[in-house]
Amino acid sequence: MSDRDRKPKFRRGGGKAPDRGRESGRRPAWRERGASPDDPVILYGWHTVAAALANPERRIRKLLLTENAARRLVDDNIDTRVTPEIVRPSLIDQRLGPDAVHQGLLAEADPLPSPDIDTLPQDGIVLVLDQITDPHNVGAIMRSAAAFAVKAIVTTARHSPEATGVLAKAASGALELVPLVTVQNLARALTGLNDQGFMTVGLDSHGSENLGTVALRQLTKDTCDVVARIDLPGAIQSLNVSNAAALGLYIATSRLKTA
Amino acid sequence: MSDRDRKPKFRRGGGKAPDRGRESGRRPAWRERGASPDDPVILYGWHTVAAALANPERRIRKLLLTENAARRLVDDNIDTRVTPEIVRPSLIDQRLGPDAVHQGLLAEADPLPSPDIDTLPQDGIVLVLDQITDPHNVGAIMRSAAAFAVKAIVTTARHSPEATGVLAKAASGALELVPLVTVQNLARALTGLNDQGFMTVGLDSHGSENLGTVALRQLTKDTCDVVARIDLPGAIQSLNVSNAAALGLYIATSRLKTA
Repeated sequence: MSDRDRKPKFRRGGGKAPDRGRESGRRPAWRERGASPDDPVILYGWHTVAAALANPERRIRKLLLTENAARRLVDDNIDTRVTPEIVRPSLIDQRLGPDAVHQGLLAEADPLPSPDIDTLPQDGIVLVLDQITDPHNVGAIMRSAAAFAVKAIVTTARHSPEATGVLAKAASGALELVPLVTVQNLARALTGLNDQGFMTVGLDSHGSENLGTVALRQLTKDTCDVVARIDLPGAIQSLNVSNAAALGLYIATSRLKTA
Repeated sequence: MSDRDRKPKFRRGGGKAPDRGRESGRRPAWRERGASPDDPVILYGWHTVAAALANPERRIRKLLLTENAARRLVDDNIDTRVTPEIVRPSLIDQRLGPDAVHQGLLAEADPLPSPDIDTLPQDGIVLVLDQITDPHNVGAIMRSAAAFAVKAIVTTARHSPEATGVLAKAASGALELVPLVTVQNLARALTGLNDQGFMTVGLDSHGSENLGTVALRQLTKDTCDVVARIDLPGAIQSLNVSNAAALGLYIATSRLKTA
Protein backbone atom coordinates (compact mmCIF):
# COMPACT_ATOMS: atom_id res chain seq x y z
CA MET A 1 0.00 0.00 0.00
CA SER A 2 1.15 3.48 -0.67
CA ASP A 3 1.22 6.15 1.99
CA ARG A 4 -0.95 8.53 0.03
CA ASP A 5 -3.97 8.47 2.25
CA ARG A 6 -2.32 8.00 5.58
CA LYS A 7 -3.16 10.46 8.26
CA PRO A 8 -0.60 12.04 10.53
CA LYS A 9 -2.34 13.15 13.70
CA PHE A 10 -1.62 16.20 15.77
CA ARG A 11 -2.01 16.58 19.44
CA ARG A 12 -1.60 19.41 21.78
CA GLY A 13 -0.72 18.95 25.40
CA GLY A 14 -2.92 20.41 28.04
CA GLY A 15 -3.63 18.24 31.06
CA LYS A 16 -1.47 16.38 33.50
CA ALA A 17 0.05 12.97 33.10
CA PRO A 18 0.41 10.51 35.97
CA ASP A 19 4.07 10.34 36.94
CA ARG A 20 4.98 6.76 36.29
CA GLY A 21 8.69 7.50 36.01
CA ARG A 22 10.69 7.71 32.83
CA GLU A 23 12.18 4.26 33.15
CA SER A 24 8.94 2.30 33.06
CA GLY A 25 8.24 0.35 29.94
CA ARG A 26 11.25 1.63 28.04
CA ARG A 27 12.18 -0.34 25.03
CA PRO A 28 14.20 0.37 21.92
CA ALA A 29 12.27 2.54 19.47
CA TRP A 30 11.07 0.91 16.26
CA ARG A 31 13.04 -2.27 16.60
CA GLU A 32 10.24 -4.77 16.79
CA ARG A 33 10.00 -5.69 13.14
CA GLY A 34 12.24 -8.65 12.57
CA ALA A 35 15.32 -7.03 14.06
CA SER A 36 17.31 -8.60 16.85
CA PRO A 37 17.97 -6.21 19.75
CA ASP A 38 21.65 -6.78 19.07
CA ASP A 39 21.48 -5.57 15.47
CA PRO A 40 23.13 -2.18 15.14
CA VAL A 41 21.33 0.88 13.91
CA ILE A 42 23.05 2.00 10.69
CA LEU A 43 23.63 5.72 10.41
CA TYR A 44 25.27 7.39 7.42
CA GLY A 45 25.63 10.81 5.88
CA TRP A 46 27.04 13.97 7.42
CA HIS A 47 24.04 15.34 9.31
CA THR A 48 22.86 11.95 10.50
CA VAL A 49 26.23 10.84 11.87
CA ALA A 50 27.23 14.26 13.22
CA ALA A 51 23.94 14.49 15.13
CA ALA A 52 24.45 10.97 16.55
CA LEU A 53 27.97 11.86 17.70
CA ALA A 54 26.54 14.94 19.41
CA ASN A 55 23.88 12.92 21.24
CA PRO A 56 25.18 11.55 24.56
CA GLU A 57 22.21 9.14 24.69
CA ARG A 58 23.36 7.44 21.51
CA ARG A 59 25.93 4.69 22.08
CA ILE A 60 28.25 4.47 19.07
CA ARG A 61 29.63 0.98 18.48
CA LYS A 62 31.74 1.55 15.42
CA LEU A 63 32.61 4.45 13.12
CA LEU A 64 33.88 4.21 9.55
CA LEU A 65 35.19 7.44 8.05
CA THR A 66 36.93 8.42 4.87
CA GLU A 67 39.99 10.63 5.28
CA ASN A 68 38.03 13.63 4.06
CA ALA A 69 35.17 13.02 6.47
CA ALA A 70 37.60 12.53 9.38
CA ARG A 71 39.25 15.84 8.53
CA ARG A 72 35.89 17.60 8.33
CA LEU A 73 34.92 16.30 11.78
CA VAL A 74 38.21 17.63 13.18
CA ASP A 75 37.66 20.99 11.45
CA ASP A 76 34.18 21.20 12.97
CA ASN A 77 35.42 20.18 16.44
CA ILE A 78 33.17 17.12 16.53
CA ASP A 79 34.26 14.42 18.95
CA THR A 80 34.14 10.97 17.34
CA ARG A 81 33.83 9.32 20.79
CA VAL A 82 35.15 6.02 19.43
CA THR A 83 38.34 5.50 17.48
CA PRO A 84 37.25 5.66 13.85
CA GLU A 85 38.38 3.24 11.18
CA ILE A 86 39.69 5.26 8.25
CA VAL A 87 38.47 3.57 5.06
CA ARG A 88 38.16 4.22 1.37
CA PRO A 89 34.77 5.51 0.12
CA SER A 90 34.31 2.32 -1.89
CA LEU A 91 34.20 0.25 1.29
CA ILE A 92 31.24 2.29 2.59
CA ASP A 93 29.67 2.05 -0.88
CA GLN A 94 29.89 -1.72 -0.61
CA ARG A 95 28.20 -1.73 2.78
CA LEU A 96 25.35 0.58 1.81
CA GLY A 97 24.84 0.03 -1.90
CA PRO A 98 25.49 2.47 -4.72
CA ASP A 99 22.50 4.77 -4.09
CA ALA A 100 23.34 5.76 -0.53
CA VAL A 101 24.76 9.28 -0.24
CA HIS A 102 27.01 8.61 2.76
CA GLN A 103 29.49 11.49 2.39
CA GLY A 104 32.20 9.28 3.86
CA LEU A 105 30.56 8.54 7.22
CA LEU A 106 29.01 5.31 8.49
CA ALA A 107 28.25 4.58 12.15
CA GLU A 108 26.94 1.46 13.80
CA ALA A 109 25.09 2.38 16.98
CA ASP A 110 22.64 1.16 19.59
CA PRO A 111 18.99 2.05 19.06
CA LEU A 112 17.75 4.88 21.23
CA PRO A 113 15.36 4.05 24.06
CA SER A 114 11.66 4.65 23.41
CA PRO A 115 10.08 6.85 26.08
CA ASP A 116 6.88 5.67 27.70
CA ILE A 117 3.80 7.34 26.28
CA ASP A 118 2.68 8.38 29.76
CA THR A 119 5.79 10.51 30.19
CA LEU A 120 5.41 12.87 27.24
CA PRO A 121 5.64 16.61 27.83
CA GLN A 122 2.22 18.20 28.12
CA ASP A 123 2.93 21.51 26.46
CA GLY A 124 3.44 20.92 22.80
CA ILE A 125 2.63 19.00 19.66
CA VAL A 126 2.91 15.22 19.52
CA LEU A 127 2.72 13.70 16.05
CA VAL A 128 1.02 10.31 15.71
CA LEU A 129 1.83 8.28 12.59
CA ASP A 130 -0.63 5.61 11.53
CA GLN A 131 1.08 2.98 9.39
CA ILE A 132 3.33 5.21 7.34
CA THR A 133 5.45 2.49 5.80
CA ASP A 134 7.87 4.27 3.46
CA PRO A 135 11.12 5.02 5.32
CA HIS A 136 11.82 8.08 3.13
CA ASN A 137 8.48 9.55 4.19
CA VAL A 138 8.92 8.74 7.87
CA GLY A 139 12.44 10.18 7.80
CA ALA A 140 11.25 13.39 6.12
CA ILE A 141 8.44 13.64 8.67
CA MET A 142 10.94 13.28 11.53
CA ARG A 143 13.06 16.03 9.99
CA SER A 144 10.03 18.32 9.74
CA ALA A 145 9.05 17.37 13.30
CA ALA A 146 12.47 18.50 14.52
CA ALA A 147 12.17 21.69 12.45
CA PHE A 148 8.81 22.47 14.08
CA ALA A 149 9.95 21.53 17.61
CA VAL A 150 7.52 18.62 17.92
CA LYS A 151 7.81 16.99 21.37
CA ALA A 152 7.52 13.37 20.26
CA ILE A 153 6.42 11.06 17.48
CA VAL A 154 4.16 8.12 18.30
CA THR A 155 4.08 5.16 15.98
CA THR A 156 3.09 1.54 15.97
CA ALA A 157 5.53 -1.31 16.46
CA ARG A 158 4.07 -3.04 13.44
CA HIS A 159 3.66 -1.45 10.00
CA SER A 160 6.38 1.09 10.69
CA PRO A 161 9.90 1.09 9.27
CA GLU A 162 12.84 0.80 11.64
CA ALA A 163 14.75 3.87 12.75
CA THR A 164 17.87 3.03 10.81
CA GLY A 165 19.38 3.29 7.32
CA VAL A 166 17.28 5.17 4.77
CA LEU A 167 14.90 6.49 7.42
CA ALA A 168 17.78 7.83 9.53
CA LYS A 169 19.37 9.43 6.46
CA ALA A 170 16.11 11.11 5.42
CA ALA A 171 15.64 12.32 9.01
CA SER A 172 18.95 14.19 8.64
CA GLY A 173 19.80 14.10 12.36
CA ALA A 174 16.22 14.36 13.63
CA LEU A 175 16.36 10.83 15.09
CA GLU A 176 18.59 12.28 17.81
CA LEU A 177 16.24 15.19 18.47
CA VAL A 178 12.66 13.90 18.45
CA PRO A 179 11.75 11.08 20.87
CA LEU A 180 10.11 8.11 19.16
CA VAL A 181 7.40 6.36 21.13
CA THR A 182 6.54 2.89 19.88
CA VAL A 183 3.15 1.50 20.88
CA GLN A 184 1.45 -1.81 20.22
CA ASN A 185 -2.04 -0.41 19.85
CA LEU A 186 -2.61 3.03 18.37
CA ALA A 187 -6.26 3.33 19.41
CA ARG A 188 -5.34 2.66 23.02
CA ALA A 189 -2.47 5.14 22.79
CA LEU A 190 -4.82 7.83 21.46
CA THR A 191 -7.29 7.22 24.26
CA GLY A 192 -4.42 7.43 26.74
CA LEU A 193 -3.28 10.74 25.28
CA ASN A 194 -6.86 12.03 25.47
CA ASP A 195 -6.91 11.06 29.14
CA GLN A 196 -3.71 13.04 29.64
CA GLY A 197 -5.47 16.10 28.22
CA PHE A 198 -4.16 16.12 24.67
CA MET A 199 -6.48 17.44 21.99
CA THR A 200 -6.63 15.16 18.97
CA VAL A 201 -6.66 16.47 15.42
CA GLY A 202 -6.64 13.91 12.64
CA LEU A 203 -5.49 14.96 9.20
CA ASP A 204 -7.34 13.63 6.18
CA SER A 205 -7.95 14.99 2.70
CA HIS A 206 -11.67 14.42 3.29
CA GLY A 207 -11.64 15.96 6.78
CA SER A 208 -14.73 17.88 7.83
CA GLU A 209 -12.89 20.93 9.16
CA ASN A 210 -10.30 23.24 7.65
CA LEU A 211 -7.08 22.92 9.68
CA GLY A 212 -6.54 26.64 9.14
CA THR A 213 -9.70 27.50 11.06
CA VAL A 214 -10.46 24.60 13.41
CA ALA A 215 -10.67 25.68 17.08
CA LEU A 216 -7.21 24.58 18.22
CA ARG A 217 -7.51 26.38 21.54
CA GLN A 218 -10.51 24.53 22.77
CA LEU A 219 -8.86 21.94 24.93
CA THR A 220 -11.84 19.93 26.01
CA LYS A 221 -12.65 16.41 25.07
CA ASP A 222 -15.53 17.72 22.99
CA THR A 223 -13.05 18.81 20.39
CA CYS A 224 -11.10 15.60 20.40
CA ASP A 225 -11.16 13.52 17.26
CA VAL A 226 -11.72 16.47 14.99
CA VAL A 227 -10.69 15.40 11.53
CA ALA A 228 -9.30 18.34 9.58
CA ARG A 229 -8.29 18.82 5.99
CA ILE A 230 -5.87 21.19 4.31
CA ASP A 231 -7.70 23.12 1.62
CA LEU A 232 -6.03 22.70 -1.76
CA PRO A 233 -7.05 24.87 -4.72
CA GLY A 234 -5.78 22.57 -7.49
CA ALA A 235 -6.82 19.48 -9.39
CA ILE A 236 -5.20 17.00 -6.99
CA GLN A 237 -6.75 16.91 -3.55
CA SER A 238 -4.22 14.97 -1.54
CA LEU A 239 -0.52 15.33 -0.89
CA ASN A 240 2.41 13.06 -0.25
CA VAL A 241 2.17 12.16 3.46
CA SER A 242 5.39 13.92 4.45
CA ASN A 243 4.32 17.05 2.58
CA ALA A 244 0.95 16.92 4.33
CA ALA A 245 2.67 16.47 7.70
CA ALA A 246 4.95 19.47 7.07
CA LEU A 247 1.97 21.63 6.09
CA GLY A 248 -0.03 20.43 9.08
CA LEU A 249 2.83 21.23 11.44
CA TYR A 250 3.29 24.65 9.86
CA ILE A 251 -0.38 25.51 10.19
CA ALA A 252 -0.74 24.11 13.70
CA THR A 253 2.46 25.81 14.88
CA SER A 254 1.51 29.16 13.34
CA ARG A 255 -1.97 29.04 14.85
CA LEU A 256 -0.84 27.93 18.30
CA LYS A 257 1.76 30.73 18.31
CA THR A 258 -0.90 33.34 17.73
CA ALA A 259 -3.52 31.64 19.93
CA MET B 1 24.55 15.02 -3.74
CA SER B 2 21.50 15.05 -1.62
CA ASP B 3 18.60 17.38 -2.25
CA ARG B 4 18.63 18.86 1.20
CA ASP B 5 19.78 22.31 0.29
CA ARG B 6 18.15 22.63 -3.09
CA LYS B 7 16.01 25.64 -3.69
CA PRO B 8 12.66 25.52 -5.39
CA LYS B 9 11.88 28.91 -6.84
CA PHE B 10 8.54 30.61 -7.06
CA ARG B 11 7.41 32.99 -9.67
CA ARG B 12 4.31 34.98 -10.14
CA GLY B 13 3.09 36.01 -13.51
CA GLY B 14 2.45 39.64 -14.25
CA GLY B 15 3.61 40.90 -17.62
CA LYS B 16 3.02 39.85 -21.18
CA ALA B 17 4.81 37.17 -23.13
CA PRO B 18 5.58 37.48 -26.83
CA ASP B 19 3.31 35.13 -28.73
CA ARG B 20 5.68 32.75 -30.43
CA GLY B 21 3.09 30.05 -30.90
CA ARG B 22 2.73 26.95 -28.80
CA GLU B 23 4.43 24.72 -31.32
CA SER B 24 7.81 26.42 -31.34
CA GLY B 25 10.67 24.62 -29.68
CA ARG B 26 8.53 21.83 -28.35
CA ARG B 27 10.39 18.75 -27.25
CA PRO B 28 9.60 15.87 -24.96
CA ALA B 29 9.82 16.88 -21.31
CA TRP B 30 12.69 15.50 -19.26
CA ARG B 31 13.85 12.97 -21.80
CA GLU B 32 17.33 14.29 -22.45
CA ARG B 33 19.26 12.17 -19.97
CA GLY B 34 20.38 9.06 -21.77
CA ALA B 35 16.93 8.11 -22.99
CA SER B 36 16.14 7.50 -26.61
CA PRO B 37 13.08 9.41 -27.87
CA ASP B 38 11.61 6.04 -28.69
CA ASP B 39 11.83 4.73 -25.15
CA PRO B 40 8.40 4.58 -23.58
CA VAL B 41 7.47 6.43 -20.44
CA ILE B 42 6.58 3.83 -17.80
CA LEU B 43 3.47 4.62 -15.78
CA TYR B 44 2.15 2.40 -12.98
CA GLY B 45 -0.19 2.63 -10.04
CA TRP B 46 -3.87 3.53 -9.99
CA HIS B 47 -3.76 7.33 -9.88
CA THR B 48 -0.84 7.60 -12.28
CA VAL B 49 -2.34 5.35 -14.96
CA ALA B 50 -5.91 6.57 -14.51
CA ALA B 51 -4.76 10.18 -14.96
CA ALA B 52 -2.80 9.22 -18.09
CA LEU B 53 -5.85 7.48 -19.56
CA ALA B 54 -7.88 10.62 -18.86
CA ASN B 55 -5.33 12.85 -20.61
CA PRO B 56 -6.02 13.13 -24.37
CA GLU B 57 -2.51 14.55 -24.88
CA ARG B 58 -0.93 11.35 -23.59
CA ARG B 59 -0.52 8.67 -26.25
CA ILE B 60 -0.78 5.23 -24.66
CA ARG B 61 1.24 2.57 -26.46
CA LYS B 62 0.49 -0.45 -24.32
CA LEU B 63 -1.54 -1.25 -21.22
CA LEU B 64 -1.03 -4.20 -18.88
CA LEU B 65 -3.80 -4.79 -16.37
CA THR B 66 -4.61 -7.42 -13.81
CA GLU B 67 -8.17 -8.72 -13.87
CA ASN B 68 -8.98 -6.74 -10.74
CA ALA B 69 -7.56 -3.52 -12.14
CA ALA B 70 -9.45 -4.01 -15.42
CA ARG B 71 -12.69 -4.49 -13.47
CA ARG B 72 -12.03 -1.38 -11.41
CA LEU B 73 -11.49 0.70 -14.55
CA VAL B 74 -14.81 -0.56 -15.92
CA ASP B 75 -16.52 0.19 -12.60
CA ASP B 76 -15.14 3.73 -12.69
CA ASN B 77 -16.10 4.23 -16.35
CA ILE B 78 -12.50 4.85 -17.36
CA ASP B 79 -11.80 4.29 -21.05
CA THR B 80 -8.62 2.25 -21.57
CA ARG B 81 -8.21 3.70 -25.09
CA VAL B 82 -6.04 0.74 -26.15
CA THR B 83 -6.92 -2.92 -25.80
CA PRO B 84 -5.36 -3.94 -22.52
CA GLU B 85 -3.39 -7.13 -22.01
CA ILE B 86 -4.80 -8.93 -18.99
CA VAL B 87 -1.88 -10.31 -16.99
CA ARG B 88 -1.11 -11.78 -13.61
CA PRO B 89 0.24 -9.38 -10.95
CA SER B 90 3.53 -11.28 -10.90
CA LEU B 91 4.22 -10.29 -14.50
CA ILE B 92 4.01 -6.60 -13.58
CA ASP B 93 6.11 -7.31 -10.48
CA GLN B 94 8.78 -8.74 -12.76
CA ARG B 95 8.78 -5.67 -14.96
CA LEU B 96 8.94 -3.15 -12.13
CA GLY B 97 10.76 -4.94 -9.33
CA PRO B 98 9.35 -6.01 -5.98
CA ASP B 99 9.14 -2.54 -4.37
CA ALA B 100 6.85 -0.92 -6.94
CA VAL B 101 3.27 -0.53 -5.74
CA HIS B 102 1.60 -0.91 -9.12
CA GLN B 103 -1.92 -1.93 -8.03
CA GLY B 104 -2.23 -4.03 -11.17
CA LEU B 105 -1.72 -1.28 -13.77
CA LEU B 106 1.25 -0.64 -16.03
CA ALA B 107 1.17 1.59 -19.10
CA GLU B 108 3.81 2.32 -21.69
CA ALA B 109 3.26 5.75 -23.19
CA ASP B 110 4.82 8.54 -25.18
CA PRO B 111 6.40 11.37 -23.20
CA LEU B 112 4.34 14.53 -23.07
CA PRO B 113 5.52 17.54 -25.07
CA SER B 114 7.37 20.22 -23.16
CA PRO B 115 5.83 23.67 -23.64
CA ASP B 116 8.11 26.52 -24.62
CA ILE B 117 9.03 28.74 -21.69
CA ASP B 118 7.86 31.81 -23.58
CA THR B 119 4.33 30.47 -23.72
CA LEU B 120 3.62 30.08 -20.00
CA PRO B 121 0.46 31.62 -18.55
CA GLN B 122 1.17 34.95 -16.92
CA ASP B 123 -1.28 34.80 -14.07
CA GLY B 124 -0.07 32.26 -11.61
CA ILE B 125 2.79 30.49 -9.90
CA VAL B 126 5.54 28.77 -11.88
CA LEU B 127 7.83 26.51 -9.88
CA VAL B 128 11.49 26.36 -10.90
CA LEU B 129 13.49 23.34 -9.73
CA ASP B 130 17.25 23.66 -9.59
CA GLN B 131 18.89 20.23 -9.79
CA ILE B 132 16.51 18.27 -7.62
CA THR B 133 17.81 14.82 -8.47
CA ASP B 134 15.73 12.42 -6.38
CA PRO B 135 12.73 11.21 -8.41
CA HIS B 136 10.64 10.66 -5.25
CA ASN B 137 11.16 14.30 -4.32
CA VAL B 138 10.44 15.62 -7.82
CA GLY B 139 7.31 13.45 -8.02
CA ALA B 140 6.05 14.65 -4.64
CA ILE B 141 6.74 18.24 -5.71
CA MET B 142 4.73 17.71 -8.90
CA ARG B 143 1.85 16.32 -6.84
CA SER B 144 1.94 19.36 -4.55
CA ALA B 145 2.19 21.63 -7.59
CA ALA B 146 -1.01 20.08 -8.96
CA ALA B 147 -2.66 20.42 -5.55
CA PHE B 148 -1.79 24.12 -5.44
CA ALA B 149 -2.77 24.78 -9.07
CA VAL B 150 0.76 25.70 -10.16
CA LYS B 151 0.81 26.71 -13.85
CA ALA B 152 4.06 24.97 -14.81
CA ILE B 153 7.28 23.48 -13.51
CA VAL B 154 10.58 24.51 -15.04
CA THR B 155 13.57 22.25 -14.73
CA THR B 156 16.90 21.65 -16.38
CA ALA B 157 17.49 18.99 -18.99
CA ARG B 158 20.56 17.83 -17.07
CA HIS B 159 20.60 16.94 -13.37
CA SER B 160 16.88 16.18 -13.37
CA PRO B 161 15.28 12.76 -13.26
CA GLU B 162 13.11 11.67 -16.15
CA ALA B 163 9.32 11.95 -15.99
CA THR B 164 8.74 8.22 -15.81
CA GLY B 165 8.70 5.33 -13.33
CA VAL B 166 9.23 6.28 -9.69
CA LEU B 167 8.81 9.99 -10.41
CA ALA B 168 5.50 9.41 -12.21
CA LYS B 169 4.28 7.17 -9.38
CA ALA B 170 5.19 9.74 -6.72
CA ALA B 171 3.49 12.43 -8.79
CA SER B 172 0.25 10.43 -8.48
CA GLY B 173 -1.25 11.72 -11.73
CA ALA B 174 0.24 15.20 -11.56
CA LEU B 175 2.40 14.55 -14.64
CA GLU B 176 -0.79 14.84 -16.67
CA LEU B 177 -1.84 18.07 -14.98
CA VAL B 178 1.22 20.30 -14.61
CA PRO B 179 3.18 21.20 -17.75
CA LEU B 180 6.89 20.46 -17.47
CA VAL B 181 9.21 22.90 -19.18
CA THR B 182 12.72 21.60 -19.76
CA VAL B 183 15.44 24.18 -20.31
CA GLN B 184 19.13 23.89 -21.05
CA ASN B 185 20.21 26.87 -18.98
CA LEU B 186 18.36 27.81 -15.82
CA ALA B 187 19.94 31.25 -15.41
CA ARG B 188 18.84 32.22 -18.92
CA ALA B 189 15.36 30.84 -18.24
CA LEU B 190 15.06 32.92 -15.08
CA THR B 191 16.14 36.07 -16.91
CA GLY B 192 13.59 35.28 -19.60
CA LEU B 193 10.84 34.87 -17.01
CA ASN B 194 11.87 38.16 -15.43
CA ASP B 195 11.58 39.80 -18.84
CA GLN B 196 8.07 38.36 -19.13
CA GLY B 197 7.16 40.09 -15.86
CA PHE B 198 7.45 37.24 -13.42
CA MET B 199 8.58 38.06 -9.92
CA THR B 200 11.29 35.71 -8.68
CA VAL B 201 11.35 34.36 -5.16
CA GLY B 202 14.11 31.93 -4.31
CA LEU B 203 13.65 29.60 -1.35
CA ASP B 204 16.63 28.92 0.89
CA SER B 205 16.96 28.04 4.56
CA HIS B 206 19.38 30.96 4.87
CA GLY B 207 17.19 33.37 2.92
CA SER B 208 17.20 36.99 4.01
CA GLU B 209 13.41 37.44 4.03
CA ASN B 210 10.59 35.53 5.69
CA LEU B 211 8.37 34.06 2.96
CA GLY B 212 5.39 34.76 5.22
CA THR B 213 6.02 38.50 5.08
CA VAL B 214 7.96 39.22 1.89
CA ALA B 215 6.20 41.73 -0.39
CA LEU B 216 4.68 39.31 -2.90
CA ARG B 217 2.49 41.99 -4.45
CA GLN B 218 5.30 44.23 -5.53
CA LEU B 219 5.66 43.16 -9.12
CA THR B 220 8.59 45.24 -10.17
CA LYS B 221 12.00 44.02 -11.10
CA ASP B 222 13.33 45.59 -7.93
CA THR B 223 11.83 42.73 -5.99
CA CYS B 224 13.12 40.03 -8.28
CA ASP B 225 15.64 37.63 -6.88
CA VAL B 226 14.42 38.00 -3.33
CA VAL B 227 15.66 34.95 -1.46
CA ALA B 228 13.20 33.98 1.24
CA ARG B 229 13.29 31.49 4.07
CA ILE B 230 10.55 29.65 5.94
CA ASP B 231 10.92 30.33 9.66
CA LEU B 232 11.26 27.12 11.64
CA PRO B 233 11.08 27.13 15.43
CA GLY B 234 12.90 23.86 16.04
CA ALA B 235 16.43 22.48 16.23
CA ILE B 236 16.67 21.60 12.53
CA GLN B 237 16.62 24.57 10.20
CA SER B 238 16.04 22.96 6.84
CA LEU B 239 13.43 20.62 5.40
CA ASN B 240 13.29 17.89 2.83
CA VAL B 241 13.04 19.70 -0.51
CA SER B 242 9.54 18.43 -1.33
CA ASN B 243 8.32 19.43 2.14
CA ALA B 244 9.86 22.87 1.68
CA ALA B 245 8.22 23.18 -1.74
CA ALA B 246 4.80 22.24 -0.33
CA LEU B 247 5.16 24.80 2.46
CA GLY B 248 6.36 27.45 0.06
CA LEU B 249 3.40 26.82 -2.24
CA TYR B 250 0.99 26.91 0.69
CA ILE B 251 2.37 30.20 1.97
CA ALA B 252 2.60 31.81 -1.47
CA THR B 253 -0.89 30.65 -2.44
CA SER B 254 -2.44 31.81 0.83
CA ARG B 255 -0.78 35.20 0.59
CA LEU B 256 -1.58 35.76 -3.07
CA LYS B 257 -5.22 34.82 -2.38
CA THR B 258 -5.53 37.52 0.27
CA ALA B 259 -3.35 40.06 -1.58
